Amino acid sequence: MPEYAVPTPRRRGRPRGGESGTRDRILGSAVDEFAEHGYDGATIRGIATRAGVDSALVHHYFGTKADLFAEAVGAPMRPDVDVPAILAGPRDELGEHLVRYVLEAWERPDVRKRGVVLLRSALGNRFATPLLASFLSRELLGRIAAELDVPDAELRASLVASQVAGLLIARHVLKLPAVASASVDELIARIAPTVQRYLTE
Amino acid sequence: MPEYAVPTPRRRGRPRGGESGTRDRILGSAVDEFAEHGYDGATIRGIATRAGVDSALVHHYFGTKADLFAEAVGAPMRPDVDVPAILAGPRDELGEHLVRYVLEAWERPDVRKRGVVLLRSALGNRFATPLLASFLSRELLGRIAAELDVPDAELRASLVASQVAGLLIARHVLKLPAVASASVDELIARIAPTVQRYLTE
Repeated sequence: MPEYAVPTPRRRGRPRGGESGTRDRILGSAVDEFAEHGYDGATIRGIATRAGVDSALVHHYFGTKADLFAEAVGAPMRPDVDVPAILAGPRDELGEHLVRYVLEAWERPDVRKRGVVLLRSALGNRFATPLLASFLSRELLGRIAAELDVPDAELRASLVASQVAGLLIARHVLKLPAVASASVDELIARIAPTVQRYLTE
Repeated sequence: MPEYAVPTPRRRGRPRGGESGTRDRILGSAVDEFAEHGYDGATIRGIATRAGVDSALVHHYFGTKADLFAEAVGAPMRPDVDVPAILAGPRDELGEHLVRYVLEAWERPDVRKRGVVLLRSALGNRFATPLLASFLSRELLGRIAAELDVPDAELRASLVASQVAGLLIARHVLKLPAVASASVDELIARIAPTVQRYLTE
C-alpha cells in the first residue's frame, strides 16, 4: 500500500506542499472517505472537502471515482482500461483472453503484491469487504455484463469473478502446491473453457 | 468461534475441572498448538502436554488430528466424513454431487457462520493462511486426489477447490448480488459442469 503524507489542516487559497503534497493529501482523504462511506457512498466532493481542495482538482489528478479508488487502495486492476482490452478479441476466445490477461498480470511482482494485499484486506476485514464487493459489481462486473447483452449477464459475470478470484486465491494466497507450481499456459488450458462457458454458452 | 476455558496450570494425576473443563482445556491447547506450529507441525502429544493430560485422552475426546483441528477452528467441514459421502455416487455425477453437498451445507446458518469466520480469518491473517492451506491440501484435496487415480489428480482437486472456494466467497462473503440471490439449483446447474470437467475430463 502507498504511504500517505501526514494530513495538513485545511487552509484557503492555493493548496500547500506543491503538486506532490497535494496529490498525496487527496489520496489520503480518499482512503478516509471510502473507509467511512463505502465505495457507493463516497463522493469526489466529499474527498475534495476533506483534502481542502476543489473537486475539479481531484478530477484533474485522478480522473473518475473508480480511478481514484483503484489508486487509493493500490488496486491491481483498472476496469476502465482492462475490461475493454479483455473484451476486444473474438467472442469465442473471450475465456482464454480473460484468463490469460489476469494470470499474466499477476505474474508481475508489483501487481501480485498489491493484489494479494487487496484480497487479504477485503476478505479479512468485515469493513473492507463491501467496499471491494461494490467496486467489483459496479465497475468490473457491470462493464462486462453490459457487453454481454443477455438477460442473465450479471450472474454470468459474477460466476466468472468467482472462478477467477478463487484461482488467484488458490495460486497466490493459499499457494496450493499444484496450482502455485502450474504454468500460466497449463492453467489457461484448464480454466479458460470454464470462463468461456459462463460467459457465452 | 467457541470460547475456551481459562487455561489452568498443569498438575499431575486426574485432570481438573471435570469432563467439560478438560475438554475445553484440550481445545484451547489445540488452538495454541496449531497457531504456534501450523497444522503439519502440531502434534497430539504437544497438545496433550499443553493441556496437562495424556495423549490417549486427547484421542478419546477428539479422535484424529484432523478431527481436532476441525473442532478447534470451528471448521464447517469434516473431510473424513464429507469426502467419502461426496465420492460415493456415480463418477459422472460427481460434479453435481459435490457442488450440491457444499452449497446445501452452507445454507445452514451454523455452517455458514463458521465457514465465513474460517474463510475470513484464514485469508485475512497472514499467519492463519498456511494453516488452512495445509489442512486443505492434506485432508481434503489429498483424499479426493487419492480417489481419482490419475497422474494430475492433485491439480484437478485443487482447481475444484479454487472454484468452490471462489463460489462460497462470492455468495457468502462478498455477497455479489447475482450469486447471493441465485437458488442452489441454479448455481448447481452452472457450476457442476465445471467441477465435473476438472475432475474427470
